[in-house]
Amino acid sequence: MSTPESGLPMVVPAQDLPARVRIHEVGARDGLQNEKGTVPTEVKAEFIRRLADAGLTTIEATSFVHPKWVPQLADAEQLFPLVSDLPVALPVLVPNERGLDRALVLGARQVAVFASATESFAKANLNRTVDEALAMFEPVVTRAKAADVRVRGYLSMCFGDPWEGAVPIHQVVRVCKSLLDMGCDELSLGDTIGVATPGHVQDLLAELTEEGVPTRAIGVHFHDTYGQALANTLAALQHGVTTVDASAGGLGGCPYARSATGNLATEDLVWMLQGLGIDTGVDLARLTATSVWMAERLGRPSPSRTVRALSHKEQ
Amino acid sequence: MSTPESGLPMVVPAQDLPARVRIHEVGARDGLQNEKGTVPTEVKAEFIRRLADAGLTTIEATSFVHPKWVPQLADAEQLFPLVSDLPVALPVLVPNERGLDRALVLGARQVAVFASATESFAKANLNRTVDEALAMFEPVVTRAKAADVRVRGYLSMCFGDPWEGAVPIHQVVRVCKSLLDMGCDELSLGDTIGVATPGHVQDLLAELTEEGVPTRAIGVHFHDTYGQALANTLAALQHGVTTVDASAGGLGGCPYARSATGNLATEDLVWMLQGLGIDTGVDLARLTATSVWMAERLGRPSPSRTVRALSHKEQ
Repeated sequence: MSTPESGLPMVVPAQDLPARVRIHEVGARDGLQNEKGTVPTEVKAEFIRRLADAGLTTIEATSFVHPKWVPQLADAEQLFPLVSDLPVALPVLVPNERGLDRALVLGARQVAVFASATESFAKANLNRTVDEALAMFEPVVTRAKAADVRVRGYLSMCFGDPWEGAVPIHQVVRVCKSLLDMGCDELSLGDTIGVATPGHVQDLLAELTEEGVPTRAIGVHFHDTYGQALANTLAALQHGVTTVDASAGGLGGCPYARSATGNLATEDLVWMLQGLGIDTGVDLARLTATSVWMAERLGRPSPSRTVRALSHKEQ
Repeated sequence: MSTPESGLPMVVPAQDLPARVRIHEVGARDGLQNEKGTVPTEVKAEFIRRLADAGLTTIEATSFVHPKWVPQLADAEQLFPLVSDLPVALPVLVPNERGLDRALVLGARQVAVFASATESFAKANLNRTVDEALAMFEPVVTRAKAADVRVRGYLSMCFGDPWEGAVPIHQVVRVCKSLLDMGCDELSLGDTIGVATPGHVQDLLAELTEEGVPTRAIGVHFHDTYGQALANTLAALQHGVTTVDASAGGLGGCPYARSATGNLATEDLVWMLQGLGIDTGVDLARLTATSVWMAERLGRPSPSRTVRALSHKEQ
């Protein structure tokens, strides 16, 4: 069965959804960080330029984590100047003050720290307790804000944790409030292992609202490990969330690897948002072409269903 | 990142959703009909037995379409008696009175007819106009009801059509009412090319309710071609729909084929429903094992994200 000739969804708005959503594109950072092998710096820069050309306005560019931990992004110093002229927001991950220093020197205007809602993942990822990690981030956030740099606080394992199972909502809310209290402008609530379902999303968002966290400060970051990312996104939109993380082509979510992280594919998200009449500013055809181009560079097909459907159409 | 040890979603109910959903399993019919090559009759029977053992209560078994059109299901006469003792509903597709005769002789207690919401697909699939097809179904439905046989009316192209583009809602509603008026007990609203988004689903369901169609008579049949099936399902549940079609392992939806029909995978659906605390009676582990077994018979991996995640976990 062929796809519609337009390659675009029909537009039928739904009730009580936001008029506009900002997509926080994570493919170049979260995606490539989780791909096997290292992509040449020039290819990364071209990828980011193409993403900007496709209309994405927030493109997480790279990470200033120590290269020993994330060798895929060891070229942050070389990459950032190649794209910093783009007229888009280019947040970068900074794990600590040393990382912040490296980012600020290069002129980064947005940074992100990476916290955990669970002790097990804080220990595994940062070799610290949750509170020790928050203490490490505090001077990072303070100094960033003093430099008028916008700060995003990632929060991993907001729903389930591979070691701890279900993560209590109050535990997530506590870390969210700590991140906002120290000055983060925005949170990104991560379903790192992809186990959330829509009722859980609703409950966490309701509790955050109850606790006074403004919805405009909340981003959602769903993984498609069990195919739930878009349904969870719909639940978040119904709560009023207007910032959604996604990865072009589903990068970082190789469906064949045991370690699949399964990022929500930006194209699948854009198909839904555009169909709902929600403005994203993204040109789906250009974005899909970019992901096909990147998949060729990586030597494997995109796991995004929309990319597959639209690129088969063109064959 | 590993999956939770339980291999089951956490249960967090959402507001205003049904307590129970009946899954109409289409893998053995719609799935195998769209797979390349023919599966031996004994394997089909074993597949259906395993699906029943996994807790599915409605398993569409086969089709009494002329073998010339669907050679994959040419063994309907041989297959049906091998499974008819199972304590589950086993609907079969019947295209016309000849098909109904064949089904009734074998003792089928549930049948389904297959209509189209668009002229283009009616012509392509049935070589008839929409109304000529309805006229052909009328004696089928009348005779089935006289034999106390339950009748489902499939309706293809309820959202978009590859030739006609967007399908007007009033056009879909008209055919729905014709099918119900002639005696169909249940409709299955098909997004045959997978282009629907949640607002469109809401609008069609609202219009059907407005026109007096009871929600209990409505099933939804979403395809995952663009990754939208589960978000669309959530929108349908929010309207009160309690019958959802899905295909074990996403059978019939080979993600690599140009002809991908992309059935919603039953496992991805069950993950969401179970996470929402909605009773389906399905044992997810058994169902996943069945789809892995069937994928081995077909010689290719299941496209279901849940099947992949859970089966990688076991490796």
